[in-house]
Amino acid sequence: MQQISEYMSKLVIVGTVAFDAIETPFGKTDKILGGAGTYIALAAEKFGVDNAIVSVVGNDFPEEYTNILKDRNVNLEGLEVVQDGKTFFWSGRYHNDMNTRDTLDTQLNVLADFQPKVPANYQDAEIVMLGNLHPLVQLEVINQMKSPKLIVLDTMNFWMDNALEELKQVIAKVDVVTINDEEARQLSGEYSLVKAARKIQEMGPSYVVIKKGEHGALLFHKDEMFFAPALPLEEVFDPTGAGDTFAGGFSGYLAKTEDYSFKNMKNAIIYGSNLASFCVEKFGTERMLSLTDEEIEKRLNVFKSLTQFKIDLN
Amino acid sequence: MQQISEYMSKLVIVGTVAFDAIETPFGKTDKILGGAGTYIALAAEKFGVDNAIVSVVGNDFPEEYTNILKDRNVNLEGLEVVQDGKTFFWSGRYHNDMNTRDTLDTQLNVLADFQPKVPANYQDAEIVMLGNLHPLVQLEVINQMKSPKLIVLDTMNFWMDNALEELKQVIAKVDVVTINDEEARQLSGEYSLVKAARKIQEMGPSYVVIKKGEHGALLFHKDEMFFAPALPLEEVFDPTGAGDTFAGGFSGYLAKTEDYSFKNMKNAIIYGSNLASFCVEKFGTERMLSLTDEEIEKRLNVFKSLTQFKIDLN
Repeated sequence: MQQISEYMSKLVIVGTVAFDAIETPFGKTDKILGGAGTYIALAAEKFGVDNAIVSVVGNDFPEEYTNILKDRNVNLEGLEVVQDGKTFFWSGRYHNDMNTRDTLDTQLNVLADFQPKVPANYQDAEIVMLGNLHPLVQLEVINQMKSPKLIVLDTMNFWMDNALEELKQVIAKVDVVTINDEEARQLSGEYSLVKAARKIQEMGPSYVVIKKGEHGALLFHKDEMFFAPALPLEEVFDPTGAGDTFAGGFSGYLAKTEDYSFKNMKNAIIYGSNLASFCVEKFGTERMLSLTDEEIEKRLNVFKSLTQFKIDLN
Repeated sequence: MQQISEYMSKLVIVGTVAFDAIETPFGKTDKILGGAGTYIALAAEKFGVDNAIVSVVGNDFPEEYTNILKDRNVNLEGLEVVQDGKTFFWSGRYHNDMNTRDTLDTQLNVLADFQPKVPANYQDAEIVMLGNLHPLVQLEVINQMKSPKLIVLDTMNFWMDNALEELKQVIAKVDVVTINDEEARQLSGEYSLVKAARKIQEMGPSYVVIKKGEHGALLFHKDEMFFAPALPLEEVFDPTGAGDTFAGGFSGYLAKTEDYSFKNMKNAIIYGSNLASFCVEKFGTERMLSLTDEEIEKRLNVFKSLTQFKIDLN
């Protein structure tokens, strides 16, 4: 699907492009390619949409990594390279259950002073995917867009703890929030996810996606609800980037289909779950780089047989 | 559906008939009607099947409770009443998250010496639903059956800790095991539920149902997999009996339809989840007693809209 069609929506992706060092019970990596923006783009590009990353790296960021994105038709005009700057670095260790992790190191580096600039040719993009970053950066991107049809926000508890008012300003301006279950509870003050989603909708977004990791994802819109399971896997090798890959699959599918109805958003979270189920099969971005269209379509059939049933009432 | 049809399978239900005292963040009950056998029967009877409980109570068990079961066409010939005996009693307190609970008191009473007797007229039943009880009691029931077509086993970690060899003997003789996720991990020694289900199948049962509480239930059979979500609810009032209600809905639906294929088992776990979603709406058995066929069918549509999607590939 990597042929770009001029008829599809443009997608602007904001998020970190970074170095990750990961430890899981299965092994350990040195600094490898990572970051929310990277994972989102590597998922979204599977839909052949015209997408651009807005982010920042230092001049320590290798051409090899830049080429990975360029080769997949990710526009990098908005990827600022700071001379004498160092790229954002995150290091973490997963526990045996793979559901919890400790952050070992975070070095903001060039991210500390990041001023996002959306390339002129992408300011008219239809879809904006705001990956996890400081809410003021996300807000600045929204302000540079001309008339986006759909703004999707991903965020995390760190910003609720440290920049709640700014985060609420962003939430008020977006159409879809994707957030994990604990964060939804923290943001809303409600334990029930049904109530939490309703409260978050009252803050602005008409769609709320609650990610439950290995337990799947829920989509809420008014009084409607849809659930996409995570694919039960024999082995989760490395969960890093799964949530971002989900967001990338979600926004990439919407950009490809240009249909923002609840009905089509169901399909978008199925595709998000589909791509995320591949992401965790290998370390870092490795699996996403080898992933083919045929594998994605085959796994769609697995998702169908996992969830579709037919009861004939008598 | 409470009209019994002579053409449907007979269902033998084994499990406690008990007094429960429950504390949740929403309130507290005195001794009320409870027990795995009770919840299973109250769910199974919704399918109008000819079902019988094999269990034991003391003579402190009130006629009012016996009548609740009789009025719903649950055959009680196999419910032994021990004169001068006291009925099994369990008391528990749920934590705020409703997913964990402390057992405050367990009094085995008449259950300590229980020798199950399947009524003569039910020894030819097609389906046996073995609710959570000592594996030797479950084994004794299996031995009294003539040629059951389907034996479903529910069990828990307590028996893995205290009667593992006996439990393994039962598991070797059944067709379906229903078990929760932590118990599946304990029994198999595998963290991945896919691997755990495969190992449990190797112990005998060709179907494994892994219950994940508020995260739904997985059905495994050979290389096939199906997932039924739990219905996301605004409020869970009291989770007591939800797992047993799931098992009752599952086995009741199979008894009604007499189709033990993987395809039909999908429907059975959807109905199990359907009924369990009602059970938790009120304290104890209260909601199950008022539940109507119309409410069940309406909720089936909610489950459909929660899970069914249509992706047209181009």
